[in-house]
Amino acid sequence: MKAYIDQNKDRFLAELLELLRIPSVSADASFKGDVVRAAEYLREKLAAAGADNAQLFQTAGNPIVYADKIIDPSLPTVLVYGHYDVQPADPYELWNSPPFEPVIKDEKIYARGACDDKGQTYMHVKAFETMMQQQTLPCNVKFMIEGEEEVGSVNLATFVKENKARLKADIIVISDTGMLANDVPSVTTGLRGLSYHEVEVTGPNRDLHSGLYGGAVANPINILCKMIASLHDENNHITIPGFYDKVEELSAEERAEMARAPFSLDAYKKALDLSDVHGEEGYSTMERNSIRPTLDVNGIWGGYTGEGAKTVIASKAFAKISMRLVPHQTSEEISELFQKHFESIAPPSVKVVVKPHHGGEPVVTPTTSAGYQAAARAMEDTFGKKPVPVRSGGSIPIVAMFKSELETDTVLMGFGLDSDAIHSPNEHFGVFNFMKGIETIPLFYQHFAALHAQNA
Amino acid sequence: MKAYIDQNKDRFLAELLELLRIPSVSADASFKGDVVRAAEYLREKLAAAGADNAQLFQTAGNPIVYADKIIDPSLPTVLVYGHYDVQPADPYELWNSPPFEPVIKDEKIYARGACDDKGQTYMHVKAFETMMQQQTLPCNVKFMIEGEEEVGSVNLATFVKENKARLKADIIVISDTGMLANDVPSVTTGLRGLSYHEVEVTGPNRDLHSGLYGGAVANPINILCKMIASLHDENNHITIPGFYDKVEELSAEERAEMARAPFSLDAYKKALDLSDVHGEEGYSTMERNSIRPTLDVNGIWGGYTGEGAKTVIASKAFAKISMRLVPHQTSEEISELFQKHFESIAPPSVKVVVKPHHGGEPVVTPTTSAGYQAAARAMEDTFGKKPVPVRSGGSIPIVAMFKSELETDTVLMGFGLDSDAIHSPNEHFGVFNFMKGIETIPLFYQHFAALHAQNA
Repeated sequence: MKAYIDQNKDRFLAELLELLRIPSVSADASFKGDVVRAAEYLREKLAAAGADNAQLFQTAGNPIVYADKIIDPSLPTVLVYGHYDVQPADPYELWNSPPFEPVIKDEKIYARGACDDKGQTYMHVKAFETMMQQQTLPCNVKFMIEGEEEVGSVNLATFVKENKARLKADIIVISDTGMLANDVPSVTTGLRGLSYHEVEVTGPNRDLHSGLYGGAVANPINILCKMIASLHDENNHITIPGFYDKVEELSAEERAEMARAPFSLDAYKKALDLSDVHGEEGYSTMERNSIRPTLDVNGIWGGYTGEGAKTVIASKAFAKISMRLVPHQTSEEISELFQKHFESIAPPSVKVVVKPHHGGEPVVTPTTSAGYQAAARAMEDTFGKKPVPVRSGGSIPIVAMFKSELETDTVLMGFGLDSDAIHSPNEHFGVFNFMKGIETIPLFYQHFAALHAQNA
Repeated sequence: MKAYIDQNKDRFLAELLELLRIPSVSADASFKGDVVRAAEYLREKLAAAGADNAQLFQTAGNPIVYADKIIDPSLPTVLVYGHYDVQPADPYELWNSPPFEPVIKDEKIYARGACDDKGQTYMHVKAFETMMQQQTLPCNVKFMIEGEEEVGSVNLATFVKENKARLKADIIVISDTGMLANDVPSVTTGLRGLSYHEVEVTGPNRDLHSGLYGGAVANPINILCKMIASLHDENNHITIPGFYDKVEELSAEERAEMARAPFSLDAYKKALDLSDVHGEEGYSTMERNSIRPTLDVNGIWGGYTGEGAKTVIASKAFAKISMRLVPHQTSEEISELFQKHFESIAPPSVKVVVKPHHGGEPVVTPTTSAGYQAAARAMEDTFGKKPVPVRSGGSIPIVAMFKSELETDTVLMGFGLDSDAIHSPNEHFGVFNFMKGIETIPLFYQHFAALHAQNA
């Protein structure tokens, strides 16, 4: 199979670049047409690769691409999940090349979605083509590729509930996470959940002259800043009552195990040009961004933000505030705690509205499962060393939903790197990583089928 | 003269509307052409009204309109100052009619600049025309109308320094302030100064995924909020060390005198739809917005502010922060204290840049001066009652500059109202106020000339 993959490398890359040229931004309705084009492109490629039933399922939002290949009902079935929608690309001016005009530079593919998740999803399409061409597909496969992951997979749950039989599988595999390094393969065994809110603080009923009114009325921007500041104490603990009540506390052994993963604080600070790191007292950087919950402002705006100086007191100020959750916290519970607390800390001189966006549940995937074992063996085959199990700070909310709706475990076999700048300007994906993924996936199928046969 | 003014009312208004149609926004370079058009329009009208030497003086920024009428060097000279530039009109969507398509509704002129300061400046042009037509000009007059007041009069000082002889006068009159009410005439005897800064907080060197990095790096928005929040204590006192050292403390008598000015807290809260007022402990609303210094955020921005939810940690966050100053504070001193303090409270995990914008000095104009006395008598003639002397919270930085450069006092005889919504959507100016101004100004000239003759 390696030979086939090597021979077709240029075409595989060319096809991915074509997909990356489609600005399928799900957060902005003005890209709706491109979103559908990206879905159609994947449907065509799956059919061309030999999949059956390749089709788009319409939802209340963006379509879901489905395709399958059932070679023998007695064999196990792998369900591949991915997403073809991407994050907004702004600020555009910080990109070295336009986000939707992909280029390959220094063996890296630069484009919005290069890694998250078009690049990683397309590895599966090409791995499938390879197995079909080489007649080495060892089990059944189903594809479910959605277009709303970056906006909270708002319509996926409905689709899954209504298509349980169609989606029946023995394992779900997702490549939407990263590895520690190209020479330190890893498999993600845990994900943080998410609670996301937009808040609006209203002071006076209109913008006011800061000279005539300054000092006498509540300035909604100053108030919003005070409210946000109060959400962390001096040790950077989150002050929302009850926020930590259900947080999973890791044992000293587990923390020691985590600490063994290779990590250089200096390299980390250098890469981000940080004079110092910043976070919750009593936890390491690796712990802060994986096993601990967080609260971050993702956006803030209010008043005059244009050129020059305008002496105005704004009527309203806004912020987008999200919390990352860890096992045993639920997004619903935390969202309620946040909303209640945020409204309670508003002074009587302002009005506050809290609008919850989507949420997601934290998950931990067992390293004992056949799925994890198959992924670990496949990576050992292609990387020459056993992968390290790691907790990731990111969220893939649908993993918890798959478990509850389909009663199926998920294995998170990702090939990206932290340095890929996903969600940032100049997002990229290594050609090495893209090709390694295409090589590793068929081996995962083989190991999974073999383990399944043993256990049967 | 009253008859002439009444007969020409419609034309006076029509000419003002024509001036208001020109979007002379000085804060935004893209309006540069309109700024020059507005200056040219005033130059023409002054010449048409009978002024000599009507011309535009070029500066490093926007032109200054100058004109004069010297009828007898032995008579006193009044220098009229005004500005033809206006504040930005955004947010446009909150205007009931387009800001640069003036309409008269319910006896009010609606447009950006209707009051501040095109309407109030144009009263002087039409009052001058009236005195010329009626041959009742009792003294010499000079006009200096600038186009950069809303951006800090950055080039006016240079012009004044270079034209001291040309600008020599016995009194400067400015109509760029308000009255307490149409039946409670007042003259402004004090103004607050201004110190205005733009701050930039930088965390990581690029936008980051809030899942992978959240909790482990300083979020510049959260940090900026904490820094801004710390600038006021729980009593809403400003915490910048030394900030209050030179603040003029009014005597109990002076505060009691101020408290006699008609003011209804309920009406104030109702007008702004405030559930409660908010400000410095130990001072009344009227004191908070006039005799006390303030610190307000005029604008804030950072991260993702678009539609939907983006899970990003921004690299940078920004705010525009201004302070209103009271007598004995200087903008330079306060700007230094602010910059030093703001940089000092930044945690080591971020970088902070403070960029000072323009500043302005607070002033108090003596009620004993001939200028104030002439204004008081003129208003008593037209309003039928003595005006109340009031301290205004706003800033007209150039008043202090005129005093130091030209050694000339200024009288602040304004005809606007707090409810005119200057700097806000739906700015307006009462037709009553516009006409009252045109009636009152010639009487000011007469009283000033008479007082001058007595004192001579």
